[in-house]
Amino acid sequence: MKRPLEPSQTGLHRVVGLTDGVFAIALTLIVLEIRVPAHEAIRSEHDLLAAIAALAPRFLTYALSFLTLTIFWFGQQAQHGLIARSDRRLATLNLCFLAFIALLPFSTDLLADFLEFRTAVLVYWLNLLMLGVTLSASWHYADKSGFAAEDLDAETKRMVYLRIVKAQVLWAVGAALCLISPLLSVGFMLVVQLVYAISPRAALVRKIIG
Amino acid sequence: MKRPLEPSQTGLHRVVGLTDGVFAIALTLIVLEIRVPAHEAIRSEHDLLAAIAALAPRFLTYALSFLTLTIFWFGQQAQHGLIARSDRRLATLNLCFLAFIALLPFSTDLLADFLEFRTAVLVYWLNLLMLGVTLSASWHYADKSGFAAEDLDAETKRMVYLRIVKAQVLWAVGAALCLISPLLSVGFMLVVQLVYAISPRAALVRKIIG
Amino acid sequence: MKRPLEPSQTGLHRVVGLTDGVFAIALTLIVLEIRVPAHEAIRSEHDLLAAIAALAPRFLTYALSFLTLTIFWFGQQAQHGLIARSDRRLATLNLCFLAFIALLPFSTDLLADFLEFRTAVLVYWLNLLMLGVTLSASWHYADKSGFAAEDLDAETKRMVYLRIVKAQVLWAVGAALCLISPLLSVGFMLVVQLVYAISPRAALVRKIIG
Amino acid sequence: MKRPLEPSQTGLHRVVGLTDGVFAIALTLIVLEIRVPAHEAIRSEHDLLAAIAALAPRFLTYALSFLTLTIFWFGQQAQHGLIARSDRRLATLNLCFLAFIALLPFSTDLLADFLEFRTAVLVYWLNLLMLGVTLSASWHYADKSGFAAEDLDAETKRMVYLRIVKAQVLWAVGAALCLISPLLSVGFMLVVQLVYAISPRAALVRKIIG
Repeated sequence: MKRPLEPSQTGLHRVVGLTDGVFAIALTLIVLEIRVPAHEAIRSEHDLLAAIAALAPRFLTYALSFLTLTIFWFGQQAQHGLIARSDRRLATLNLCFLAFIALLPFSTDLLADFLEFRTAVLVYWLNLLMLGVTLSASWHYADKSGFAAEDLDAETKRMVYLRIVKAQVLWAVGAALCLISPLLSVGFMLVVQLVYAISPRAALVRKIIG
Repeated sequence: MKRPLEPSQTGLHRVVGLTDGVFAIALTLIVLEIRVPAHEAIRSEHDLLAAIAALAPRFLTYALSFLTLTIFWFGQQAQHGLIARSDRRLATLNLCFLAFIALLPFSTDLLADFLEFRTAVLVYWLNLLMLGVTLSASWHYADKSGFAAEDLDAETKRMVYLRIVKAQVLWAVGAALCLISPLLSVGFMLVVQLVYAISPRAALVRKIIG
Repeated sequence: MKRPLEPSQTGLHRVVGLTDGVFAIALTLIVLEIRVPAHEAIRSEHDLLAAIAALAPRFLTYALSFLTLTIFWFGQQAQHGLIARSDRRLATLNLCFLAFIALLPFSTDLLADFLEFRTAVLVYWLNLLMLGVTLSASWHYADKSGFAAEDLDAETKRMVYLRIVKAQVLWAVGAALCLISPLLSVGFMLVVQLVYAISPRAALVRKIIG
Repeated sequence: MKRPLEPSQTGLHRVVGLTDGVFAIALTLIVLEIRVPAHEAIRSEHDLLAAIAALAPRFLTYALSFLTLTIFWFGQQAQHGLIARSDRRLATLNLCFLAFIALLPFSTDLLADFLEFRTAVLVYWLNLLMLGVTLSASWHYADKSGFAAEDLDAETKRMVYLRIVKAQVLWAVGAALCLISPLLSVGFMLVVQLVYAISPRAALVRKIIG
């Protein structure tokens, strides 16, 4: 006899559909803040070039957030690949994760506008932290509820946590650097994201990023 | 012989695709109203912190609407899980439901901007009501037309209605509270949404929210 | 041996995915023009009610465009249900159709802003016309290229055209009414869309809308 | 034993879902810059007609970008059709491609606003170039890593590159034309995109566009 919203594979598919939608929109929204210069202020090719050059911090934070979105997209995808079913509570945790993904364009804009302020860096970092928290929580719940795929060993299960924790430690270090200089903080985070995105095969790096 | 738009499973899949899209966009649009403070007004870390703190009502209504979207996403998903086929009329009812989902960012903004006005609360509640009405209507039509999955008993069918009605009663109570204070109203609704989102296993709560 | 972009079922699936995305966004964008009243102008509940009432033309054009999108979504879906494969040219025709779907929020806003001007009605109608033209063109190409499902009889094939033509005739009549009054024009179109959306079973109406 | 994010077909499906989302949004965002004329400035049908006529450059760049998006959508789809699996690195390359797709609405707006400036044409061209670069890079990586479908011959593999290079050469010629006149440049690119979109069967054209 059918009952609504029992743990099922369909539930998982729906979350995946919604996730891809939210990520696609977030990826596109962070570009919206790269605004075309006002026409009145531009009188020559040189003016236009200067105006585009002045957008540099926006391109920087765009790159940063694009990489961040990429990394968390993989993070959730890795988890989904290890989960066989989903129930309502797990889906809710997934949606909480998406709530913070949807906030990322806001944090990114704040960072781009106030690159010289520590507060902006901390808000951005808080967003990254909450993404890690919700991702860990959903993995914890899925594992505890027996939704993980059957052929999963304890080592792999532990690795999922480890990867999240390691990334969070690196970002916390990055955030702490804003005590020295907010720009240094952003630069460090950008390098971290780049390393994750490229995911090099070098043994040392592998060990650090898990 | 094939005929266009006959009741089919494909029709149902398409509605699901469109639904996930509309929800993903709605989830992201409600964030857009959390605007980054204007750069000119900010001269110190303290100014920026104060400006972000001033965004609190927006974060509150964001949380409220995110939960609302979550709940209705599950509501429609629960229904789709019990329906085997869809025809054009059922799809139209589903789209009417989506029309009110698409209006939710508007109602949310109105609420965030005019948190002290009863009218804003009532518009928000009207939106919730119409979501319930269209959801009930589509379930009524699907059941009447024999689109429900075959292995469904009368008890489960009744439960679908009951859940919708119970939620609507709770929201109506919440809306009525705006006679005392609009903020109380919003607070009550937020608690209701939280309870639904967490969906605790306590017997008493189970009985109330169905 | 595999070759890129040969006529295939996958090609059709991809077009469907893109279509649902564009429709979901268009459905949501037309709401964005229903703007929350400015806070400064509102001092009492009465002011807020009046400001919301003043949004009536926007809600009218929102309803109109939502119905229009619904109808064309069904129109393309009906076609896709009758097509077994797609090649690059057919996909391009489908994308041209989507280009005019993406323009609909613009035409809708224009109509809402200039409800008293015939030009606005004509631009809106032109958009509807182009949707019909691209829809017919893609059906013509699919049929001619042998992409239609095999178990399709000539009668059904003809019916696809007939439905498009009948709707276009009704809209053309609606557009022509703007010679008397633009508002009459919009009202007539709204009734036409409503009839299509509800798609009543009455024999007379069936005959008119095909 | 399952491991997260191993090369798989699922990984490819997820990239496809995200891709369709980003393209759908980009297709719709480029329309957003076609703004409805301000109501105050319009007093007669003639004023409105003139205001709409003044939007002509925006419709031109809209058509240009719509065609561009179409072409690259096919480009990536052609590649995906030839690839059997995807790993994390390939997905990252695909996302880099999407990062430049998401930038296209910005380049398009810049072009529409500064149609008379060479800088705007060059930024647009740079965007097209980066799309080609990321597309080539992902094909190179997929081929090198053995992710290509098994029944693929060397000729087809080479053809994928050739098509990208030929298109890039044509756009480079178009961009170079801005030394004579930016408008000529845009006109030339528009013709190129049209030829690709229509993809005529004439032997000579086939040879040029590959």
